Amino acid sequence: MHSGDSAEAPLTPGPIFEMLHAHQRTAALTAAIDLDVFRAVGKGPGDAASIADHCQASERGIRILCDFLTISGVLVKKDGHYHHTPMSAAFLDPRSPSSMASIAQFLGNPAMRGTYNNLAEIVRSGRTVLPGDGTVEPENPIWVQFAESMVPMMAPLAGPLASAVLEGQSGTMRILDIAAGHGLFGIEIAKMNPQAHITGLDWAAVLDGAQKYAGKAGVQDRYNMLPGSAFDVAFDGPYDAMLLTNFLHHFDKPTCVGLLRKIHAALRSDGRCATLEFVPNEDRVSPPAPAAFALTMLTSTAAGDAYTLSELTAMYKEAGFKNISSQPIAMSSHTIVIGHA
Amino acid sequence: MHSGDSAEAPLTPGPIFEMLHAHQRTAALTAAIDLDVFRAVGKGPGDAASIADHCQASERGIRILCDFLTISGVLVKKDGHYHHTPMSAAFLDPRSPSSMASIAQFLGNPAMRGTYNNLAEIVRSGRTVLPGDGTVEPENPIWVQFAESMVPMMAPLAGPLASAVLEGQSGTMRILDIAAGHGLFGIEIAKMNPQAHITGLDWAAVLDGAQKYAGKAGVQDRYNMLPGSAFDVAFDGPYDAMLLTNFLHHFDKPTCVGLLRKIHAALRSDGRCATLEFVPNEDRVSPPAPAAFALTMLTSTAAGDAYTLSELTAMYKEAGFKNISSQPIAMSSHTIVIGHA
Repeated sequence: MHSGDSAEAPLTPGPIFEMLHAHQRTAALTAAIDLDVFRAVGKGPGDAASIADHCQASERGIRILCDFLTISGVLVKKDGHYHHTPMSAAFLDPRSPSSMASIAQFLGNPAMRGTYNNLAEIVRSGRTVLPGDGTVEPENPIWVQFAESMVPMMAPLAGPLASAVLEGQSGTMRILDIAAGHGLFGIEIAKMNPQAHITGLDWAAVLDGAQKYAGKAGVQDRYNMLPGSAFDVAFDGPYDAMLLTNFLHHFDKPTCVGLLRKIHAALRSDGRCATLEFVPNEDRVSPPAPAAFALTMLTSTAAGDAYTLSELTAMYKEAGFKNISSQPIAMSSHTIVIGHA
Repeated sequence: MHSGDSAEAPLTPGPIFEMLHAHQRTAALTAAIDLDVFRAVGKGPGDAASIADHCQASERGIRILCDFLTISGVLVKKDGHYHHTPMSAAFLDPRSPSSMASIAQFLGNPAMRGTYNNLAEIVRSGRTVLPGDGTVEPENPIWVQFAESMVPMMAPLAGPLASAVLEGQSGTMRILDIAAGHGLFGIEIAKMNPQAHITGLDWAAVLDGAQKYAGKAGVQDRYNMLPGSAFDVAFDGPYDAMLLTNFLHHFDKPTCVGLLRKIHAALRSDGRCATLEFVPNEDRVSPPAPAAFALTMLTSTAAGDAYTLSELTAMYKEAGFKNISSQPIAMSSHTIVIGHA
């Protein structure tokens, strides 16, 4: 990403200045989404005055903000007018069906982002400064926001995950979707297999959203809800498959193994458990996105991590699973890991 | 910097995620400097346990932080050990004579950085949310920190600026260094010309630091202090040259022209004024570093800006200056603009 380790580039502190100012880029994109700048740019004509008018903002502020977005590669500027890049048109204009603007709501959550003001303290202690165990505290309302906001990011993963879990099977089956969130992963299986019955497990307030999506997909008759903590509620098995998406990374290894044992005990003999995770390579510094996710777990949890494939495989094995396989999802930062009972 | 406008790259929201997480990079570098990570890496052996021991921090926290710095290109990782890049060795290890770590203190000032939490509000109103006129409020203590912290960034500019201002002249001369800060720019002229007498103008608390540096350079006998505001104090001319470094960007154009008029009136007929500024191209979106500086002025001032060369030239002319020339300083984001009385 930077030229610091390139032998050809002259040695300057430029990358250090860039990094010390990187927070400006997050703030600029978040503010532009909040101000509805990307809708204004899409409508045109795109001069600072007309964007300011649409956003009910000052022309000075809009001009400097849009210049900054141009410098950051998000917009283009021609003859004093700002225009979409292909990326901003597709993912930032609220009029686009693939708009991702809502994820800024979750990623910009003030409590979560505020933890970074205490990062040195977090590194000293090795755990979040959030109360209790951080984001995994019972009934944490952040997961309602997560479920609502992250749908544009998670929806493209639902198809690959459902295919991997079904393994070509049809017929009656029971699926438990642990930490279901928006519910899209289980719902996708219900759509693919009309005889699949899904149970979504999550905090009650989160499941309200999952039920709404099940209704939209027309699978509400085969969608049940199991409110509570995955560690505490009875799973009411046996199941043909369980989904465990974006969940293990919040916990330390013994906790993960304990949960996987509970899952193993509630699966049929031919059942399987599928995790969806940020899985860095064994060096823990590549690829960038899944490897960097460990920092989010450091700041927001007591003992979570971005686990490598060898770590996840060892957890599965320790919990009694066999025949463990993995597949990265193309064009995403996620990997599916499946273990068989 | 990003792939959003590249026709070959597949269209993914990756750059948006990267930008929404960019604040992590600022936090990670700031925390690592605070924790003395770069000294520990330089001393070796560089495994997480030994760095954690040096920094009195948790091994989990250090491992995740150093992995993140590796992903960001600041460190390298081999066989579980972290090592310096040429850049981190030169500019981040406190044992290096060119260490820049102190600038993180100024750039990480909580009040300044905190304004970015209110960026949408700032864009709406078009001015800082800091009290009064922001960083240019009288006696703002931030400038004491600035003078102390930014020396490693400014020191390399002092030679080129002094040469440009002296224009090959020697002999007795009087120089007024407006907003002198650390004083290094005037002091460099005193070092180059043993008959130059320098007057440093700044808030009294800031000038304490300039006097210290004048003493270190052995030019204290030719270094006078003029405490106060450049807009209010009598300049006590005439001067052969005036320095106006990193100052005009805090103010609107009429204020800049008014100050340049006051300067013009206090110069000898063959005198000159030299500004050191972030000067973007006329498109205001290139080069990246000087163009992006406008955002810092939006968040921290009432009406400041990164002015283009045509704007600065127009200000100089309106204030009565002639023969206006400019020269960018190599390997920096700064440009010298000189006007003659």
